[in-house]
Amino acid sequence: MSPSKLYLGVIGVGGVGTAFLSQLASLPPSLRPTLVFVSRSSKQLYTPSYDAVSASDLQSSTSRLLSLPELTTYLSSTPGKAILVDNTSSQEVADAYPSFLRRGISVVTPNKKAFSSSLQLWTDIVNAVDASNGQAMVYHESSVGAGLPVISTLKDLVATGDQVTRIEGVFSGTMSFLFNSFAPADGSGKGKWSEIVAQAKEAGYTEPDPRDDLNGMDVARKLTILARLAGLKVQGPDSFPVQSLIPKPLGSADSSDEFMQRLPEFDGEMEGYKDAAAQEGKVIRYVGSVDVGAGKVKVGLETVEKGTPIASLRGSDNLICFYTKRYGANPLVIQGAGAGGEVTAMGVTADLIKVIERLR
Amino acid sequence: MSPSKLYLGVIGVGGVGTAFLSQLASLPPSLRPTLVFVSRSSKQLYTPSYDAVSASDLQSSTSRLLSLPELTTYLSSTPGKAILVDNTSSQEVADAYPSFLRRGISVVTPNKKAFSSSLQLWTDIVNAVDASNGQAMVYHESSVGAGLPVISTLKDLVATGDQVTRIEGVFSGTMSFLFNSFAPADGSGKGKWSEIVAQAKEAGYTEPDPRDDLNGMDVARKLTILARLAGLKVQGPDSFPVQSLIPKPLGSADSSDEFMQRLPEFDGEMEGYKDAAAQEGKVIRYVGSVDVGAGKVKVGLETVEKGTPIASLRGSDNLICFYTKRYGANPLVIQGAGAGGEVTAMGVTADLIKVIERLR
Repeated sequence: MSPSKLYLGVIGVGGVGTAFLSQLASLPPSLRPTLVFVSRSSKQLYTPSYDAVSASDLQSSTSRLLSLPELTTYLSSTPGKAILVDNTSSQEVADAYPSFLRRGISVVTPNKKAFSSSLQLWTDIVNAVDASNGQAMVYHESSVGAGLPVISTLKDLVATGDQVTRIEGVFSGTMSFLFNSFAPADGSGKGKWSEIVAQAKEAGYTEPDPRDDLNGMDVARKLTILARLAGLKVQGPDSFPVQSLIPKPLGSADSSDEFMQRLPEFDGEMEGYKDAAAQEGKVIRYVGSVDVGAGKVKVGLETVEKGTPIASLRGSDNLICFYTKRYGANPLVIQGAGAGGEVTAMGVTADLIKVIERLR
Repeated sequence: MSPSKLYLGVIGVGGVGTAFLSQLASLPPSLRPTLVFVSRSSKQLYTPSYDAVSASDLQSSTSRLLSLPELTTYLSSTPGKAILVDNTSSQEVADAYPSFLRRGISVVTPNKKAFSSSLQLWTDIVNAVDASNGQAMVYHESSVGAGLPVISTLKDLVATGDQVTRIEGVFSGTMSFLFNSFAPADGSGKGKWSEIVAQAKEAGYTEPDPRDDLNGMDVARKLTILARLAGLKVQGPDSFPVQSLIPKPLGSADSSDEFMQRLPEFDGEMEGYKDAAAQEGKVIRYVGSVDVGAGKVKVGLETVEKGTPIASLRGSDNLICFYTKRYGANPLVIQGAGAGGEVTAMGVTADLIKVIERLR
C-alpha cells in the first residue's frame, strides 16, 4: 500500500502536540500520512471528503465537533488506513482506544492513561490489537520516559524470551530534580526541602500545582505500564504502595498557594530522612521498582548507595534499569531527559514512523 | 501476507548463531518464519522445494554447497518473502548484501563488516534498500553494543529531525573491563597492565589473540557505523585516528604467546598514562567519539573526570552517550553488556521480529 493511502488524525495541540506537528511537517513525503483531522479542546478541523488539512487553520475552523464515536466512524471510513495520534492526557480519549483499534485505526500516543488505568481497559486494548491480526497497532513509547527507548527495549527483551527480573529507576524528571538538588551525592546540597520545591515550581519544573508531582501518581502510572509489559497483572496505579510526599495535613490544603505556604512546616521531616541516609553514607531518592518474580511494585523514598547510577543522576534526568536473566548482575540502563515537549514528541514521531513502515 | 509465507535463511551457527536459533525456536508461531536454509563454514542444509529444515540436522547434511550468488537465487525464488540472518563476521557475506537486497531479500545481522568497510559498500546497501520501496530492509542493531538499543535510538533521533551533535562512549566490552580493572575511579586498581590483560585473556574476555582487541579496530568499526548513521561520509575504519594499544615493537610479534610474554616490558608506559591522569584527579579510559559538526571521529585513550558515567563504568559494560540538540546539556545514555552470545542474539531476534512485522 502506498504511503499516500495513510490518513492521520491528531488530537491535542498543546506543548507535545505542537512539537509533534512540527516534527511531522519535516518528515520526508514518503513517510508523511495525509492529515485529515486535528483537534484541540473546543475546536476540530476536518472535511467529509478527507482532504488534507493544515493545523494552522484549526483556530479559525468552524467544523461541527465530532464526538469520539463519530470520530471513530470518520477515521475508519477513510479510503485507506487510518492512524490516530493522541497527544492529550485525557482518560476519555484513552477509553476509546479499544473502539478505534477494533475499527482498524492504529493509535500512537504519549498518553499514560490508557495503559495505567483499569486492567480491563489494558486487556481490551491488547485484545483489540491481537484480533486485528497486525492491521491495528498501538505504540506508546513516550508514555514512560518520553523519547527514551524504554517501552521498546522492554518489549524487545520480553519478545525475544529474556526474563526480566527487576525494573528500577527514577521515573519523574521533577522528582529527579528535587532530590538531585536536595541531597546530591557529593554532599553539596544546601537549602531546605520547601525552598527547593519552590525553586522548581518557579522554574517550571513542576506541574502548576506541585502536589500533582509530589503525590507520586505520575510515577505510579509509569510503573503500572512497565509492570504490565513485564507480565504482571497490576490492577491499577493505586493497587500497590505509593508514598506521597504531600504531608498528610496538607493533603486538604485548598490551593497550591496555601500548600506552598505551609510546606516549610514539614521541612524537618525531609531533613530527617536525608540525615538518616547520610549517616549510612547514602542519599535519598524517589524510586520506583517492579520485582517481577515476587509480583511486587512500589514507589517511594529509598536510600541509595553513593556511586550507583541512581545516586549519581544529574539535573532532571530519568534513569531506568532493567535487570534480566541475560544481562546478569549489571543491568541494561537507559538515562536522559524524561520530560519536555520536544523529546516527548520525538517518541511519538518515531512511533508513528514505525506504524507507517508497517502499514504501507 | 500471512506469516507462513515468510522464509528464513541463516548463515553461521557459532556462539551468536546458536543463541539466535534457540531464541527463534521460542517465538510464537505467528512470528516464526519457515527456516529453509542454514549453514556453517563447510555445511549447508536446504531443500530445493523450500521445506522447513531443522538446524540440528545441519551436521549430517549432505547438501551440495551453494555459492553466495546461488544462495541469492535460492532465497529470492521462495514462494513468499525471504529474510537472511547473517550471524558471521564474514566480509564476503557482507559484500553480498546489496545483491540480496536488490533481489528483495531482507537482511538481519550483527556483522559489522557491511556497515564499516568501504563507503561504496555502505552506499550500495542504502541504495538497494531505498530502491526496494520498503520491500527489502536491513536491520543491524547488534553491530554496535550487541542487544543494547544503540542503532535504533540513533536512527530514531535522526529520523525525527533531532540534530545529533556528538556521540561518545566506551564501545568495547574488553576495553571496558581492562580499564575498569586497571584504573577504577575509586583508585583501588592494583596490578600491572600486562597482568590485567593476561587475566582478561584467561577469563575469555578477550579475543583468542588479545591484539585483535587492543588494536582498536573493533571500536573503530563501531564508530564508523555510528558516524555514518549520523550523516558523516566516513571512508572506513582506517580513515580517522585510532590509537592502538599494541606497543609498536610488538606489532610484529609472531604469535599471541610471544606478544603476551613481552607485554610486561611496556607496563611502564601504561602506568605513566594512568599516573598522569591520577595527578589531575582523573582516570584513563578507551573512548570512541564522533563530533558530528566538525566531522571528526577518533578512538583512543582519554583522561576522564571521576564521577562521570564513563569513569564510573563497571565490569565489561558498554556506555554510549548521544548529545543532541533536543536533549541539550545532558546526553541520552545507554549502558549495559555490549558483548556475549545471548545479548547479541537478542538484538538479532528483536530485529527479525521487526522485519517480520513489516513484511507480513
